[in-house]
Amino acid sequence: MNESSGLVLGIDIGGTNTPFGLVDGQGTLQFEDQLETRAEQPLPQLLDRLFQRLEDGLRHRPELGAPRAIGVGSPNANALTGWVESPPNICWGTVDLVGELRRRSDLPVFLTNDANAAALGEWTHGAGRGASDVLVITLGTGLGSGLIVGGELVHGASGHAGELGHICVEPDGRACNCGLRGCLETYVSAGGLLRTAAELGLDLDPWCRPGEEPSPRTLHQAAEAGDPRAAQVFELSGAMLARGLSTAIHILSPGRIVVCGGITRAGEWLLEPVRRQLPPLLLEPFRGTYSLLRGELDPDRAGVLGAAAWARRGLAGKALIGTGTGTGTGAARV
Amino acid sequence: MNESSGLVLGIDIGGTNTPFGLVDGQGTLQFEDQLETRAEQPLPQLLDRLFQRLEDGLRHRPELGAPRAIGVGSPNANALTGWVESPPNICWGTVDLVGELRRRSDLPVFLTNDANAAALGEWTHGAGRGASDVLVITLGTGLGSGLIVGGELVHGASGHAGELGHICVEPDGRACNCGLRGCLETYVSAGGLLRTAAELGLDLDPWCRPGEEPSPRTLHQAAEAGDPRAAQVFELSGAMLARGLSTAIHILSPGRIVVCGGITRAGEWLLEPVRRQLPPLLLEPFRGTYSLLRGELDPDRAGVLGAAAWARRGLAGKALIGTGTGTGTGAARV
Repeated sequence: MNESSGLVLGIDIGGTNTPFGLVDGQGTLQFEDQLETRAEQPLPQLLDRLFQRLEDGLRHRPELGAPRAIGVGSPNANALTGWVESPPNICWGTVDLVGELRRRSDLPVFLTNDANAAALGEWTHGAGRGASDVLVITLGTGLGSGLIVGGELVHGASGHAGELGHICVEPDGRACNCGLRGCLETYVSAGGLLRTAAELGLDLDPWCRPGEEPSPRTLHQAAEAGDPRAAQVFELSGAMLARGLSTAIHILSPGRIVVCGGITRAGEWLLEPVRRQLPPLLLEPFRGTYSLLRGELDPDRAGVLGAAAWARRGLAGKALIGTGTGTGTGAARV
Repeated sequence: MNESSGLVLGIDIGGTNTPFGLVDGQGTLQFEDQLETRAEQPLPQLLDRLFQRLEDGLRHRPELGAPRAIGVGSPNANALTGWVESPPNICWGTVDLVGELRRRSDLPVFLTNDANAAALGEWTHGAGRGASDVLVITLGTGLGSGLIVGGELVHGASGHAGELGHICVEPDGRACNCGLRGCLETYVSAGGLLRTAAELGLDLDPWCRPGEEPSPRTLHQAAEAGDPRAAQVFELSGAMLARGLSTAIHILSPGRIVVCGGITRAGEWLLEPVRRQLPPLLLEPFRGTYSLLRGELDPDRAGVLGAAAWARRGLAGKALIGTGTGTGTGAARV
């Protein structure tokens, strides 16, 4: 049995929901389900509910058989240690996620962070497939990113590589929740676009459905309706994303750049200003060496597929596995 | 015979001089020599002189035997194609360097650019050894860099990865020779430091030897002599280097950052302001995850040792080899 055969369990822990599923070697979800994360409850309760739900579901699908490995993506996960380190908006504190999963299963467990899981999904089964140097950006509340360099997911010496959301694109610029200033995600993310809209004096309430808060969706509506300030929000956000991408291209030269997340429903409103404003920020030899694409996967499934792909790489000896010691030095290749 | 045995020929083509040497598996130069590059002459003449000089030298050292491979570093070299693309200050235009070397030798040839060669030298035999994620910065006329990620030198999809000198650290900042604005090397390089000195109204002539032009050496002299503006040049340059490094750390999280080149003779005048100003620009999980070191190798030898190390990696199947087709798509693993 090679690493591409059989099913693996992919789990994509989020602040609100935790989808999971059994994925075959072709990237097809043979079984999928979703739990509320219940961020105010401790981790063991989430895992107990998850394994109970999986067991219940599989009782009706005996033909599927048992999975061969578990891949899991989580906010603030560190693949080098196997721990999750004080994820924002979840009450766990710092916990040994790999250890907790191993207490409930004999299967090998492979952990990475949520942005990397989404990146692995797009790389393996979406807009990044077939490329060996890929940057995947996920736009949501913040800006997450995952990097594939030379055909390997990058974790770096600390395990935290790929924080493109916190590179500085405007010295002394907007204050970020992280405590730094001018971070890319203060301009390019759901919150960043709304800050820009507010700075331009754009009132999005007329485009909100009853009870709906202003969001990138309402901004998109306003742009489609011809509001020039809404178009300007996309123009300015595209300029900032172009700054961030020019930096990433000069450093890593990815051949494929994939932008994912709900905001990309605005499509070319977001991407056209980037495509136009990026080349003048590049050294000549980099122009024309990349393609800038929207993600192809359903955002609710990209993380599950990516976590499963990470587990499959683990079975092939190509993923890091945390020892669960929490020392940060115990990483080993499987 | 494994890849660490025998000698390999390392060649480090520069705008002024081209040192070369035969390097053993321990990184010892068993034979070394140097040519004037004569940048106004075509490439074939340089290579003819080089092979003649090597042959003459080895006639007196028959015990050394023939090398097993050639590693070569050159400005604007592209490891993916095997070509050198219009190097600045050398008249060659775009030339098939790998092809020209193969016409003169039956040995396997491995090409990379000059900054990567210096980085490979420090990684294999200098301040980067033993680390798997390393950023090496070479400060000279400009700012060159080479990246090792997960134990592999990064070339990226275009073959041009590692251009940290041209990331923007100051939007609408100083005009760069490359045509962009605010490039890191306009602030952090020999020329960049002198521009900052001029902006502060610092006259370096009193510290110049007879006939000497102002240089980082005279700036260092002025700082040692207690000139507060000279100290401020290092402070401001350190702030800009800290900006560039914070970006590289958020993206790649190297565990080792090595700064090389003549300017590092100024030692802690340059590095102390970086060490102090960098942590406040980092997300908390990155603080304390890297060490910032001066290069350990003689700058005149780092490129030769690195080019030789690249050839040795090539013999082990871990280097790219250009096909010499110049199409940019013909790269293959050996």
